[in-house]
Amino acid sequence: MSKITIKELAQKLNLSISTVSRALSDSYETSEETKKKVKALAEQLGYQPDLYASNLRSRKSKTIGVIIPEITNSFFSLAINGIEEIAREKGYHVLIYLTHESYQQELSISRLLLDGRVDGVLMSVSSETTDVKHLADFNERKIPVVLFDRIHDGYKTLKVGTDDYQSGFRSALHLIQKGCKNLAYLSISKQLCMDKRRMKGFLDAVKKFEIRSRVVYCHQDDAGNEKVLSGLLSAEDAPDGIFASVEKLGVAVYEVCNKLSVSIPEKLKVISFSNLKMAPLLQPPLTTITQPAFEIGKQATVALFKALKNNFIYEEDEEIIIRSELIVRRSTE
Amino acid sequence: MSKITIKELAQKLNLSISTVSRALSDSYETSEETKKKVKALAEQLGYQPDLYASNLRSRKSKTIGVIIPEITNSFFSLAINGIEEIAREKGYHVLIYLTHESYQQELSISRLLLDGRVDGVLMSVSSETTDVKHLADFNERKIPVVLFDRIHDGYKTLKVGTDDYQSGFRSALHLIQKGCKNLAYLSISKQLCMDKRRMKGFLDAVKKFEIRSRVVYCHQDDAGNEKVLSGLLSAEDAPDGIFASVEKLGVAVYEVCNKLSVSIPEKLKVISFSNLKMAPLLQPPLTTITQPAFEIGKQATVALFKALKNNFIYEEDEEIIIRSELIVRRSTE
Repeated sequence: MSKITIKELAQKLNLSISTVSRALSDSYETSEETKKKVKALAEQLGYQPDLYASNLRSRKSKTIGVIIPEITNSFFSLAINGIEEIAREKGYHVLIYLTHESYQQELSISRLLLDGRVDGVLMSVSSETTDVKHLADFNERKIPVVLFDRIHDGYKTLKVGTDDYQSGFRSALHLIQKGCKNLAYLSISKQLCMDKRRMKGFLDAVKKFEIRSRVVYCHQDDAGNEKVLSGLLSAEDAPDGIFASVEKLGVAVYEVCNKLSVSIPEKLKVISFSNLKMAPLLQPPLTTITQPAFEIGKQATVALFKALKNNFIYEEDEEIIIRSELIVRRSTE
Repeated sequence: MSKITIKELAQKLNLSISTVSRALSDSYETSEETKKKVKALAEQLGYQPDLYASNLRSRKSKTIGVIIPEITNSFFSLAINGIEEIAREKGYHVLIYLTHESYQQELSISRLLLDGRVDGVLMSVSSETTDVKHLADFNERKIPVVLFDRIHDGYKTLKVGTDDYQSGFRSALHLIQKGCKNLAYLSISKQLCMDKRRMKGFLDAVKKFEIRSRVVYCHQDDAGNEKVLSGLLSAEDAPDGIFASVEKLGVAVYEVCNKLSVSIPEKLKVISFSNLKMAPLLQPPLTTITQPAFEIGKQATVALFKALKNNFIYEEDEEIIIRSELIVRRSTE
């Protein structure tokens, strides 16, 4: 007879794996009735716990994993500083994994982290991610996950982000007030919640003031983006105002304008979501929507340690919103 | 009687722990004579191998660890892309640890990585690091280490870097050719080999042309650097040419010039080691010494996999030098 697994027990009882696991370990979260039922079947079928696996789970790694799409983006490098500040206080190590915006990478890294090498996970999903089943696996293992910045509607947990809708709205409003009549919103992904929210705010403002506008979807690679933006900016009906929903697109706009000699702000006003330290040093200084990146990283980590300390996982949606700031510089004058 | 450990065996035999370990596992690297001696004593003292630990070492983690000082520096984010390209090809995961330029952090992370969670290590030492005993521990565990960029003379291994001396020399020469008469070299650390080499090249050129020069040691924190640079640039004998040995100091010079309205390049010519994508977009565009960061990361990783594949560690000094490029822009016109 082959060894019975906890998964098979769960199937036979029509319970979740985590419920069975909790029942077997006498967790206070499980009712006495369920415990009795689970233990009876376990005994009947000769269930033997996998000691190695249970050791791994109880042996705290004192490490948290951070899964992010990239680090060339200054938002993430600042957020990591916030994360590490809290982790250091708690005596935890931080390990950083990059998905490079690939869903496959995200999947593979998530699987790796299920083996007990981290006690908890902070994550910003990749721009390709639509399916989030891999996140549910963390719940099964009782590894708490907190999402930050790149959150996803399909997975219930605590989420720390910024006021994306309002930021999009304010940006469009600012460009309109500066006299723009033909706007473009640069999107990085059709999937990302934060992109959709920024876009919704932007388009609502545009609609309110009956301004012409378009949405331009940009590729992930620099060459692709350059091509799209060169086409956009050299067209006859080129926009006179651009909102870049992420930093790398703001930088790409500057590069293309530099190449095509499109003068900012005279011919084109530019505003970008960005935490770029160099924004005031660019030619011309760039108007930004600046996220409290350090604070977002910090708050997400505080929330994660709350779960670790009290030994629970977030199973309901909860959002912490920290406001971004519009910093007006010469690119929208 | 308490359990005898491999360490005690090694002490009694006056051999290294790794030699004893190899002898016990019948490694081809150990002589028959040593094996006999080790096994005899092990039997005599009733040595029992720690199965859990030996499992850990033989079970390949398929992961490499990257220890770097910071990620806000664009050199490191590009180098990581090079590292990940090779690691992905080999089916390995990459985990990134940040020391934030702290020797204590470096020490603590190094200890953590000795437990078998990584098969090999790529490292750029912190600017505080003088003692490198913690690196020798990796050798004991047969975990190969390759240093890149921030190498250290005190630890023998394969090292991948750039032509630091020549870059320093060329930078000084360029500033002198552009008419500078009073140069300053901005150093980030008195300890770092790469900083010392860049400085030596710089000072040799200055000496050759009998130009006035000084070395300015900058702090690690932004506020400290701003203070030092403000003092330097508002002094009566302020330099007319600056070489920033690392990117963050180049950016700091721009920030201070912006604040004090020192015009670049008219009053001050600036050249900086940098991989900043935005260098051409700054006001004015920044002349840089640009390292082949991606290639350095790649070569270091190729060397690490060579060691992993053939199951050896680097115990002698060997250097791979990939040349940097001087890219002249308006800041030194």
